[in-house]
Amino acid sequence: MQNFTFINPTRIIFGKAVLAKLGPEAAKAGQKALLVYGRGSIKKNGVYDVLTGALEKEGITVTEHHGVKPNPVLSHVRSGIRKARENSCDLIVAAGGGSVIDEAKAIAAGVKYDGDVWDFFCGKAAIREALPIFTALTLPATGSEMNSGCVVTNEATAQKFSAQGPALFPRVSALDPETTMTLPRTQIANGAVDAIAHIIEGYFTTKDADAAVTDEIVHALARSVIDSTGRILKDRADYNARASMMWSATLALNGLATCGYGGMTFINHAIEHSLSALYDIAHGAGLALVIPAWFKHHLQTSGPARLEKFGAEVFGTSTAEEAIKAFEDFFRKTGAPVRLSEAAIPAEDIPRIAENAMGLIRLWGMKHEQPEIEKILGLAK
Amino acid sequence: MQNFTFINPTRIIFGKAVLAKLGPEAAKAGQKALLVYGRGSIKKNGVYDVLTGALEKEGITVTEHHGVKPNPVLSHVRSGIRKARENSCDLIVAAGGGSVIDEAKAIAAGVKYDGDVWDFFCGKAAIREALPIFTALTLPATGSEMNSGCVVTNEATAQKFSAQGPALFPRVSALDPETTMTLPRTQIANGAVDAIAHIIEGYFTTKDADAAVTDEIVHALARSVIDSTGRILKDRADYNARASMMWSATLALNGLATCGYGGMTFINHAIEHSLSALYDIAHGAGLALVIPAWFKHHLQTSGPARLEKFGAEVFGTSTAEEAIKAFEDFFRKTGAPVRLSEAAIPAEDIPRIAENAMGLIRLWGMKHEQPEIEKILGLAK
Repeated sequence: MQNFTFINPTRIIFGKAVLAKLGPEAAKAGQKALLVYGRGSIKKNGVYDVLTGALEKEGITVTEHHGVKPNPVLSHVRSGIRKARENSCDLIVAAGGGSVIDEAKAIAAGVKYDGDVWDFFCGKAAIREALPIFTALTLPATGSEMNSGCVVTNEATAQKFSAQGPALFPRVSALDPETTMTLPRTQIANGAVDAIAHIIEGYFTTKDADAAVTDEIVHALARSVIDSTGRILKDRADYNARASMMWSATLALNGLATCGYGGMTFINHAIEHSLSALYDIAHGAGLALVIPAWFKHHLQTSGPARLEKFGAEVFGTSTAEEAIKAFEDFFRKTGAPVRLSEAAIPAEDIPRIAENAMGLIRLWGMKHEQPEIEKILGLAK
Repeated sequence: MQNFTFINPTRIIFGKAVLAKLGPEAAKAGQKALLVYGRGSIKKNGVYDVLTGALEKEGITVTEHHGVKPNPVLSHVRSGIRKARENSCDLIVAAGGGSVIDEAKAIAAGVKYDGDVWDFFCGKAAIREALPIFTALTLPATGSEMNSGCVVTNEATAQKFSAQGPALFPRVSALDPETTMTLPRTQIANGAVDAIAHIIEGYFTTKDADAAVTDEIVHALARSVIDSTGRILKDRADYNARASMMWSATLALNGLATCGYGGMTFINHAIEHSLSALYDIAHGAGLALVIPAWFKHHLQTSGPARLEKFGAEVFGTSTAEEAIKAFEDFFRKTGAPVRLSEAAIPAEDIPRIAENAMGLIRLWGMKHEQPEIEKILGLAK
């Protein structure tokens, strides 16, 4: 078990009808909110009314910044920063899924920085401060509601890069599982795959496989995501399944699932970011393409031990090959694509995808070369 | 799954040779430390030298307050408060196990309060502020290093009561598993039982048994404590087992193991506090006496469902009775007593023990009467 540091100061308020509690919480931080949201689903499911009502009740002025798209783009972040400055916003409220929260974080950091916000993503500057961030999560998937990272796509350069810093931990995140009841099936699928991806990256890439307690937590969260997703697909109105899924996805990337692992990388994410940057496919869908292929490569290069252990504990399988198939079956069951062709990505593009992925692989200091990435992508054909 | 709030701002620094990092961390909070410790084991295992060296390197003046005993007592807390005031201490450093950290927390709150510190324990006052607390944990057991509670015994009234408040979260806790290598076997046993006790209280007393993700986490932590304790008893020098045990015990009572449970109580703890208050036995030993007896009572009053589920997931047992026996076997294997007679507590004392327990049961607002507590204790004969 390797040395580690764990810190996570985000306050979680979880359950039915909790969103209005963000009003008094936000009022402790400021009086002028930038309300960041997507393309209007929060107006249909009532989140918008509850949230703006709760903020206004506290005398908080709300400036709206909507239209955040999945795989949030740099140009929209920049316009959010301008809007926050013009309106002297002193806090940010994000209402939506991981894309909305990530864009809100980028804006929060960008407002407090004299240079270009992209500097944080390409490693030119570190995030030293940010506006206080409050979130109302409506899509369990990325874990952004309880971590200090964010991912933005620079659409001019086709780079999907990440930035992080302790200032980006949301002060308070409100998670109401009932807001997820109306999610379309593709978003249920993408969220499940994304959560699984976060749970497995450390487990399978660690050079130190003797962190028994973290292994147990990884198995526990994986079982919970898989079980609750199955229950949701059977009965969309199953509140307890929605709640278990929501809290599992948050815990999947709040730091808990990697304590004591060493030398781990986010290789599946690095490759996926290239797919999203080039084809604008959902992050979860991209991960469902990459993960089984990467597992096949992992089996060839690192042996069967971790796949056997994970498979036995989570899927009840006996061999590494069966464990990989069980992952594919789960992804297929949710409706996610597991081959490039199923996402209409031509195999001829593999060199171009790998070349794009290398940008992030180098930036993150990972030891992979382009031929290896091409080989992994070849296993997704 | 019930609504819940989760917040835990303590920074954990975990691993080999991490204790010296408390120096710079403490220096951010103040310049005059009260160093709280027990009866000298930290002078034998090197913790004292590392810690005082690290504090002095930062120019921090150290006032010592040692002699904390297991089941820390109010009189010693009061003398610590006087010492901290006399020396104008602006931070507290606790080096030891849960008793030391609990006493340090009580002192930290007491220094900032004009009344008597016992007011916090008997419900007369709420903790509004406290000196910043830093801990170097040497005994995995109570979880105090990452939560906001503390337990102190008023030796004049034989009351072992608890107090809590957000101000009691340690700012930083340093956990070096190597400091646990020299623990005597009884402390290994007591720590394992205490951690298990924290893991199970919510799971078995919740009125809402559909918080699937928290059930999974409870199973995961229980398996980890049981497995790592077995490894430690086989090989005292097994670092990875020590590390897994240490992090598991911290996670057992940091809030994670009860998210979404409803109507839960700390009944086993309430009964045990009476045993410690009256006989000054170790908290872990007292819990090993109470838990199997309470399980037998739980089985009679609430049915077998939770015991069957827990037993199947953690021990591989089939029935509730087998699960209870597996708990007893585990406690026995560690060397903990599982019957009153094994701890030299006379069965004739049961009414007196139950009467004492009722003080805490009423204070905590639990719905139990003395005959029920006597019946539970009778099952421990």
